Amino acid sequence: MPVYPEAMQRAITALSRLPGIGPRSAQRIAFFLLRSRKDQVRELGESLVELKTTVKFCSVCGNLTSHDPCQVCSDPHRDQGLLCVVEEPKDLIALEETGGYRGLYHVLMGKITPLDGIGPEHIRLSELEKRVKRHPPREVIIATGSDTDGETTALYIARILKPLKIKVTRIAFGIPVGSSLDFIDPTTLIRALKGRTDL
Amino acid sequence: MPVYPEAMQRAITALSRLPGIGPRSAQRIAFFLLRSRKDQVRELGESLVELKTTVKFCSVCGNLTSHDPCQVCSDPHRDQGLLCVVEEPKDLIALEETGGYRGLYHVLMGKITPLDGIGPEHIRLSELEKRVKRHPPREVIIATGSDTDGETTALYIARILKPLKIKVTRIAFGIPVGSSLDFIDPTTLIRALKGRTDL
Repeated sequence: MPVYPEAMQRAITALSRLPGIGPRSAQRIAFFLLRSRKDQVRELGESLVELKTTVKFCSVCGNLTSHDPCQVCSDPHRDQGLLCVVEEPKDLIALEETGGYRGLYHVLMGKITPLDGIGPEHIRLSELEKRVKRHPPREVIIATGSDTDGETTALYIARILKPLKIKVTRIAFGIPVGSSLDFIDPTTLIRALKGRTDL
Repeated sequence: MPVYPEAMQRAITALSRLPGIGPRSAQRIAFFLLRSRKDQVRELGESLVELKTTVKFCSVCGNLTSHDPCQVCSDPHRDQGLLCVVEEPKDLIALEETGGYRGLYHVLMGKITPLDGIGPEHIRLSELEKRVKRHPPREVIIATGSDTDGETTALYIARILKPLKIKVTRIAFGIPVGSSLDFIDPTTLIRALKGRTDL
């Protein structure tokens, strides 16, 4: 009694392990690949293996890189006294793309998320503490998100860094540039009011 | 200014081409792979290539197979006079798993779906017609789905096969075995009434 041929079954199983892909999507993808050109499937397969072989996380900051330490960490022209803490590599990339920040980074690889069982010991917080103790920066800028978990993480970092007598700051939250006030949600408006600065 | 390393970008692009995977899910999968073990990523990549290399569609019926023609088509013990038309290989598999059908199949690879621009010429209908003309079966059982597009396809097939003087039947729709009537939707109840048989 034929079920899916073995190779099909194996591909579906491997695909179902990916985040956000259940058995049904895995089947759909497998059929799609069967109908695709052979070189396209090969390109996909090889690109995944190459990704894993060539891209690493920087051992210093956690950034994505093909050389360890990464481009940012090994650049002597960057301001070594400024350390910006972000949740994910993509946050680092977003900040780099602005071109407006010339310090170093520390990527946490997540945030404290009690509901998902992610505690301080599951993200790169001890690495941050060690790093700051070894090369104390002038200032640590906490750029975690503005949701509850991001805030919790920010407060936690402030608490572990304060005893080291290091200036700890938080990026500003408020009205996005170009927005008119009536489109902004109340929580953001309140934060914008609280965070007001002298003119 | 670092964006994602090249290999990461390439993997994300290749993943985004898969059905149901947008740029965001592709990123999420790429990060997941970066954190996975190297052999697991290799297994995934190779399984996709192997799927495409070893699994084919049977040139006779459209079934998934590693040998052409497939196991069902090349089995002399199957009833060559019975031909069951289904939409997708997975429907064929479902029927095979019952063990209750010993005839041949024809997989349409879809159904007539005017809203998606899928007409009779986009599915394996001309193959069906040619096949039936070459080896006229005793009976063609249409087992497309019970939704509007499945019904349209069934009627269309009946219309092209009737001139060939072949008996065309449709699988029965009605109350699923084991269900009590009060849980069944009205459309199914009506079909069950219309499809009533002598006792």
